[in-house]
Parts: sequence; structure tokens; C-alpha cells
Amino acid sequence: MSGTLIGVGTGPGDPELITVKALKALERADVVAHFAKRGRRGNARRTVEGLLPEGIEELPLEYPVTTEIDKTDPRYIKAITSFYEASARAVEAHLNAGRTVAVLSEGDPLFYGSYMHLHVRLAARYPTEVIPGITAMSGCWSQAGIAIVQGDDIMTVLPGTLNEDELVRRVSDTEAFVIMKVGRNLPKIRRALARAGRLGGTVYVERGTMNNTSMTPLADKADDTAPYFSLVLGPGWQARPQEGVA
Amino acid sequence: MSGTLIGVGTGPGDPELITVKALKALERADVVAHFAKRGRRGNARRTVEGLLPEGIEELPLEYPVTTEIDKTDPRYIKAITSFYEASARAVEAHLNAGRTVAVLSEGDPLFYGSYMHLHVRLAARYPTEVIPGITAMSGCWSQAGIAIVQGDDIMTVLPGTLNEDELVRRVSDTEAFVIMKVGRNLPKIRRALARAGRLGGTVYVERGTMNNTSMTPLADKADDTAPYFSLVLGPGWQARPQEGVA
Ligand SMILES: C[S@@+](CC[C@H](N)C(=O)[O-])C[C@H]1O[C@@H](n2cnc3c(N)ncnc32)[C@H](O)[C@@H]1O
Ligand SMILES: C[S@@+](CC[C@H](N)C(=O)[O-])C[C@H]1O[C@@H](n2cnc3c(N)ncnc32)[C@H](O)[C@@H]1O
Repeated sequence: MSGTLIGVGTGPGDPELITVKALKALERADVVAHFAKRGRRGNARRTVEGLLPEGIEELPLEYPVTTEIDKTDPRYIKAITSFYEASARAVEAHLNAGRTVAVLSEGDPLFYGSYMHLHVRLAARYPTEVIPGITAMSGCWSQAGIAIVQGDDIMTVLPGTLNEDELVRRVSDTEAFVIMKVGRNLPKIRRALARAGRLGGTVYVERGTMNNTSMTPLADKADDTAPYFSLVLGPGWQARPQEGVA
Repeated sequence: MSGTLIGVGTGPGDPELITVKALKALERADVVAHFAKRGRRGNARRTVEGLLPEGIEELPLEYPVTTEIDKTDPRYIKAITSFYEASARAVEAHLNAGRTVAVLSEGDPLFYGSYMHLHVRLAARYPTEVIPGITAMSGCWSQAGIAIVQGDDIMTVLPGTLNEDELVRRVSDTEAFVIMKVGRNLPKIRRALARAGRLGGTVYVERGTMNNTSMTPLADKADDTAPYFSLVLGPGWQARPQEGVA
């Protein structure tokens, strides 16, 4: 009998934002895997520090170092694909030996998460479960107390990697927006929001729900540096309390 | 000293999809409020059945009966606005008496949730916390094992109440989409997806993560009836495993 593959959402960083179901999965697992940069612990792994059963077997899946290669370069694509293949084989060896493998996943596993590279390779052949997690965006708008969408509002989630014109077009054509993957894209994002007339009202949040989180209206942010764990929220619902949108 | 207002996300239906933080908030609360149709228990209240401390004071906030009135009718807007005002006053009375009020909220409180009608009226004047919840869409794509977005994908969340042409335009211009508020809008949604060439690949999920959930490719769904708790998922990431999108 093969083991079960479980994609476990750990939420955006606050360890209390893990679900009861995720905690139970960690107790049930024989092996806990997580993606990380070489020699580092990923955010998902840090989040569950102190929640893992003593002595549980760990399987860190370490990204190849590809920092100087462009993401569209065939060498990058080859390196990252081999890495996902090898990761799937490492997980598969445990499943074949009857061991249940929990793959920790920051936020929600199937929402821009690396877990899905294992899922698409293994889910058809092994018993598989996915336990949703609180997404980074939910963690951030809750922390900021922002009513993101209501009634007939449309919400658009945009990667900050899009080009400036595309960002302008998209934020001009939606009530609410969330811009993920901010980091070095911040200057471009700021220009795009200004061009679209949507800089006012947006909020920048870094390390949402973590101990060292901070946030500010994007228009007030003095510098253009942003860590990997940051996003921008454009609230859709601007109605005042007296307007009774259902 | 006034009490604290806490918006508590209870997730999409499976009681195990509640967070540790939400459980602790329920233990801390003096009063547990929830929105519901007259004489019924809302989804959020059903989800926490068995999780509430014995004998805790409950405050059901019952929607006025407005079924025959159009949502754009001034009479509807007046009735619903008075209701939110009265609900805020009922919660406020507890806060003024020093009692902490947890407002249960299906899914995530600030994502199309009624909680925000209390939040906008009270958060500036009382200590307030919002505890994010697993959204219905995360619960549904996890249950279906759908890798919704990856890499540079854009995701658009659409209310099924939009008109058909607008739905066509929107689903034609995004990688992934989620259509909420399906219910009686299903025939229109189906027509719009067919016109946009996006019916294939979409999945219909009703009562996601609940005991009586069911799901099917939308193209295979034989009838046009859908309960209130249903949504449609259009996966963005169609890449095969051999394509190493990061
Ligand atoms: C690869 S995606 C992972 C998203 C995650 N699976 C989720 O459900 O939110 C990484 C991006 O998520 C955002 N992110 C993740 N955690 C965050 C946090 N705690 N605060 C702010 N942004 C965060 C950042 O925009 C980052 O570039
Ligand atoms: C008023 S919105 C509330 C959304 C909720 N706050 C969230 O975070 O997902 C209600 C809509 O959410 C969707 N929904 C809520 N729970 C669901 C479930 N368990 N399964 C499928 N759809 C659900 C339906 O589309 C429904 O019309």
C-alpha cells in the first residue's frame, strides 16, 4: 500500500493561521517536505516550527541556484524542470515505501505555490489530498482591515512581473486588485498605479501576519525597496456605511 | 473599557478548515454574532456547531425579508441599510458594556462577507481584529485538486451577477477565473463561457468542503440548477509537467 501525498497550506506566516485540518495532517505524516532556497528554511517551514511532531523525517527540496539566468532562458527552464522532476521522484520513493508525505506550502498550495509541481506529477497515481491555506492576500487585507470586495465587485490578482502597460490596463478595469510578487517590481508598480489614477487608496503590506510585518499606504512609502514577501492591495469597496450594498 | 470586535473567518464549511486563531477567538468571546436568514442558521454558524463554548451568548442578526424587491429598488436599499445600522447598534451595545463580540463569517470576512458592514461602522471606534478564513474558492480548488494559478498567471474573481457580455469579455481576458454567486445565474454563466470558448476545463463545485458537496466539469453538468453555495473554477495553469514554469 502506497502512502498519501498531502499538500498542506500553512498560511501566510502567523503560526496561528494554520487550520485544524493542516495540524492533523502534520500529525499523520511520516515525512514532511518543503521547498526552500539552498541552506535556508522556507516560510512554510518556519511557520510550522514548533508544530512538527518530534523526530519526524524531513525532506527539504532545495531550488537549484539560477539567480544569474533569465527565467525565459532555456537553461533556466531546463534546470528548474529537472529540479521538479527530481523532487517528484524523491517524494515518490517515500510514497512507494508506504510513507505519507506532507508537503508544506506557504499560503494556499494551489495558488501560485510550488506544491503544484509535485501535484501535477503525482496526484493521478497516488492517493492525494490538498488542504487549503489562508492566502497571503487574505492575511494582508485582514491585518489592514480592508474590505476588499463586496456585492458585484470584480477582483483581479496580478503578478507584479507583468509589464507596466499591462498593469495600467488591468488596474484601470477592475474594482479591486491584488498585486503579488512585488519585490524589485515596486517602482514599476508604483508608476503603473499612478498612470491609472489608482495609487490613492492602495496599501502596501510586507511580511503580512509575521512578527516583523509593516504596512503603509503605498503613496506614503518613502523608498522603493520591497522584500520578497510583500504585496499591494487595491480595495474595491469604497462605499460609505450609509450605502447598503448587500 | 469597551470590548473588542472580532471578525472571525470560519472557512467554507468543513469545521476542520477553521484556523487555530479563530478557535482561540471563539474561546475569548463573550458574545458570538452571525448573519442569517430569518429563523435559519447561517453557514458560518453551522460550521462552528460543536466548537462554541457551552452557554455562550449568541446574537443572531436576521436579514429582513426582501425577496420580492429588486436589489436596485430604493425600498430594498433602505431596508437593508436600516438592517445593517440596527445590527451595528446591537453589536455596539455589547462592546460598550465591555463584552468582546466575535462575528462569525463564512469563508473570509472581508471577501464578499456581510461582516464588513459592521466593520465599516465600528472599526474606527472600537478595538477591532479580523481573523482571515479559508475562502470558498480555496476550499473548492483544493477539493478539486485544481492548480488555479502559477507563474505570471492572472486570476479574475467575477460575481455571476454580471451581465452576459461582461462575463464573456472578462473570461476571455484572463488566465484563471472564479465565478462566485452562481445560483440562478448558471444558465447565463454557461452561455458566456461557451461564447468565450472557455467552457472546457471549467469545474462546477457546490457546497465545497461540506458533507454533501459535489462537483463536475461544468460541460458535463446535466441541469441548470445550482444552490446558493456554488461556484465555477477556470484553471489558469494548463502547463504540462514537462514545462518548468516557476
Ligand atoms: C509564490 S507566491 C505564493 C503565494 C501563496 N501560495 C499564497 O497562497 O498566497 C509568493 C508571493 O506571495 C506573496 N506573499 C506571500 N507571503 C506573504 C506575506 N506574508 N506577506 C505579503 N506577501 C506575501 C508575495 O507577493 C510573494 O511574492
Ligand atoms: C457572500 S459570498 C461569501 C464569500 C465568502 N466570504 C468567501 O470568503 O468565500 C457567497 C458566495 O460564496 C460562494 N460560496 C460560499 N461558500 C461556498 C462553498 N462552500 N462552496 C461553493 N461556493 C461557496 C458562493 O458562490 C456564494 O454565492
